[in-house]
Amino acid sequence: MDQLKDRIRREGRHLGRGILKVDSFLTHQVDLQLMQAAGKELAQHFAGAGATKVLAAEISGIAPAAFTALALGIPMIYARKVRPITMPARVYEETAPSHTKGTMVSLIVSPEFLTVGDRVLIIDDFLATGQTIAALARIVQASGASLVGIGSCIEKSFEGGRALLQPLNVDIHSLVVISRFNGNEVVFGDAG
Amino acid sequence: MDQLKDRIRREGRHLGRGILKVDSFLTHQVDLQLMQAAGKELAQHFAGAGATKVLAAEISGIAPAAFTALALGIPMIYARKVRPITMPARVYEETAPSHTKGTMVSLIVSPEFLTVGDRVLIIDDFLATGQTIAALARIVQASGASLVGIGSCIEKSFEGGRALLQPLNVDIHSLVVISRFNGNEVVFGDAG
Repeated sequence: MDQLKDRIRREGRHLGRGILKVDSFLTHQVDLQLMQAAGKELAQHFAGAGATKVLAAEISGIAPAAFTALALGIPMIYARKVRPITMPARVYEETAPSHTKGTMVSLIVSPEFLTVGDRVLIIDDFLATGQTIAALARIVQASGASLVGIGSCIEKSFEGGRALLQPLNVDIHSLVVISRFNGNEVVFGDAG
Repeated sequence: MDQLKDRIRREGRHLGRGILKVDSFLTHQVDLQLMQAAGKELAQHFAGAGATKVLAAEISGIAPAAFTALALGIPMIYARKVRPITMPARVYEETAPSHTKGTMVSLIVSPEFLTVGDRVLIIDDFLATGQTIAALARIVQASGASLVGIGSCIEKSFEGGRALLQPLNVDIHSLVVISRFNGNEVVFGDAG
């Protein structure tokens, strides 16, 4: 997705250790036109998967997942980090390490909204180590729903997430793939 | 907004102490068509305010704020609860009590994206006690930007938020106003 590549080239900043600062358009300040275009492209890619729900993780996954779900005409569920009091006592809960916070975070989904028969498309902003997405996939499995695809805006292929998720045996698609950083320069690979 | 009222009537559940469960379409599972309609209506109401940024709070504010910002053609910023390592050390930070979690939460915005000259429209899912929105307004003031309006999807007028925010002297608009709960029944007031 050239529009996203251009934006990363212009505004992305490598902070070291593979961490890419994209908070001027994706993870803090959000460019909605860009998110809408990203969502449409992800929806188009997964149009044949028959998804009934899009599943995202708080927080930065919400915007791209929302526009993917809108384009597919299906609801989005975002996994919560803290169980709100509006949720039933029994929930699906998994944990994953947070790349940008250095702690473990919980991912919590209410059984009310993910059930046997649902076909789930996971959408996240980044595919890096794949551990957040793997935790979401475990929630899908626990619910009895089927995982039908995994989409991300930006894949950092050097962090191995795709290999971690391969055993799930579903289509994994990223709008943009970063194969490495050359100091401050972002080196793009082939979109997968 | 009749579409939102109908949805609250059909799926909303009063859990006691004024807490309304709307996680089947707004705060966990999200109906994007409804959010798009809500965002368009909020954008239309505030079209003359000359906003340059929409400001929201993690997490449930993100979806309605995103669609308002999209309709206005401006970026959205969502205040973070935890400072990610991609953010500079000096940030705008305020705290507010969380209604549904029973704890204090931080609201953090990077000075990179909110500056003198910005005209800020705050959008949230709920206007209840008004304390989260008041904290966002303090961040706007600290940044030197101007607050030009406050919009919410659902106002619970019996919790006094509007009175708390009145001294800010900006237009406050909610798509739906709940004046009280009569046991399980939701009693709507006039939209403000």
